[in-house]
Amino acid sequence: MINREQFREMHPKDIRGLIRKNDFKEHTMGVADGFVQANLAIIPEKHALEFMIFCQRNPKPCPILEVTEPGVSRLKYLSDSADLRTDLPQYRVFKGGKCVDEPYEILEYWRNDLVAFLLGCSATFDHVLHVSGVTLKHCKGTYTVPSIYVTNIQCEPVGPFEGPMVVSGRPIKIAQMSQVIQICSRYPLMHGSPIHIGNPRLIGIEDVKKVDWGEKMEISEDEIPIFWGCGVTPQSVALNAKLDLLITHYPAKMFLSDRRNYEFAVIS
Amino acid sequence: MINREQFREMHPKDIRGLIRKNDFKEHTMGVADGFVQANLAIIPEKHALEFMIFCQRNPKPCPILEVTEPGVSRLKYLSDSADLRTDLPQYRVFKGGKCVDEPYEILEYWRNDLVAFLLGCSATFDHVLHVSGVTLKHCKGTYTVPSIYVTNIQCEPVGPFEGPMVVSGRPIKIAQMSQVIQICSRYPLMHGSPIHIGNPRLIGIEDVKKVDWGEKMEISEDEIPIFWGCGVTPQSVALNAKLDLLITHYPAKMFLSDRRNYEFAVIS
Repeated sequence: MINREQFREMHPKDIRGLIRKNDFKEHTMGVADGFVQANLAIIPEKHALEFMIFCQRNPKPCPILEVTEPGVSRLKYLSDSADLRTDLPQYRVFKGGKCVDEPYEILEYWRNDLVAFLLGCSATFDHVLHVSGVTLKHCKGTYTVPSIYVTNIQCEPVGPFEGPMVVSGRPIKIAQMSQVIQICSRYPLMHGSPIHIGNPRLIGIEDVKKVDWGEKMEISEDEIPIFWGCGVTPQSVALNAKLDLLITHYPAKMFLSDRRNYEFAVIS
Repeated sequence: MINREQFREMHPKDIRGLIRKNDFKEHTMGVADGFVQANLAIIPEKHALEFMIFCQRNPKPCPILEVTEPGVSRLKYLSDSADLRTDLPQYRVFKGGKCVDEPYEILEYWRNDLVAFLLGCSATFDHVLHVSGVTLKHCKGTYTVPSIYVTNIQCEPVGPFEGPMVVSGRPIKIAQMSQVIQICSRYPLMHGSPIHIGNPRLIGIEDVKKVDWGEKMEISEDEIPIFWGCGVTPQSVALNAKLDLLITHYPAKMFLSDRRNYEFAVIS
């Protein structure tokens, strides 16, 4: 029996091996520390171009790490061994916008017209902030999901894909604010620089303690809340489009890639 | 009669107005100084998803600035007034990989299934390097096209899109090398950091004096040649795919956007 602390030190390839045998079904926060984790959205080819244009027009919440060709479940860039049909701990399957299954593999749902989108996740800069000595309240000992909110900022719509931007928020020590903004700016594929700083009401968040997902936010006097585009956005937008088929990762059970976080810094 | 020096100071919107009336048909190097110029490739929708995945997999030569929905010739991000069918000084039309026309507008070629790709151009960081005091031999007084070469680096292929990476090269003073690398790295959508530094033979360039396009390169003793992914790549790859229809800008007659170069810095 491997404990979670050991998963932290393991290589993603080995953890994916366990996942493939259904020996790891848990959330991936803090697992394979230092490697990029990605959000997954799988949709039919007929909607894929518009969805890709949607992501390109809304790069802060929807940074594209990799897109597969129709019918291809294997990756070229994020991993040379992963199979997206079996290598995530758990999935959600939606038909017409309704969740119809939460399986541990999606072999039975796979089709030759499916296109997989792997999208950046702020866990990467949480890791880089943490090792740079930045205090992150939602990461006590291990990483967890930050505070997540639906805002009143409308994404740039494309075809059936439209809806509000979802953001992740973190209370940041004022003394560390410049450093935090510099670090996340160096990772444009991991949501990049903040979309809002300081006044949550201006983006439609009336009470930061009322999160839509994740940790409740508590802001101390020496802190300012900072908000970033969140990878929940593309999934939420794809869901609202009520496609005949949409498959996503189960919340907090991300795809573990073989790429290291630091590889994604524009300036190291 | 407006001379070229005046075009340098004009707003892109005003120059596009002249272009639309066929009153400006020249190259755009040094025109609307400080504003982003973009490469254009227009292809049928049936190939657009694979071409967009190709660009995503080869971001150094093919950085995507904007993609239009099928049949839409107007932009949302790079300009709120431009029409891609009339607002470039000159175009090239290819059928089955053969150039069939070099028109000043493409109204007669436009179809409801065409998708336009606007791709980043290194003229942006040439401008930023220049105003930062970096010596650029190919920009004496005004900007011109740098030295351009076909390399032996194969792009990551997708569907019918494959071929060698085309690069632009510049001899850089050794004393300014760190600064140059830092500046271009801050512009990932304008080809970003170099793909090669120092030994052109390693990327298949036997003689830097033999360019495929642009200025001949002369390297002084206090200089090192630096090479970046070049926006000629996606056009060359689309051309090799011998699509039934491909429309590009005429070389050096770029799309003039309303966005300023500095807006594209990941860290300002």
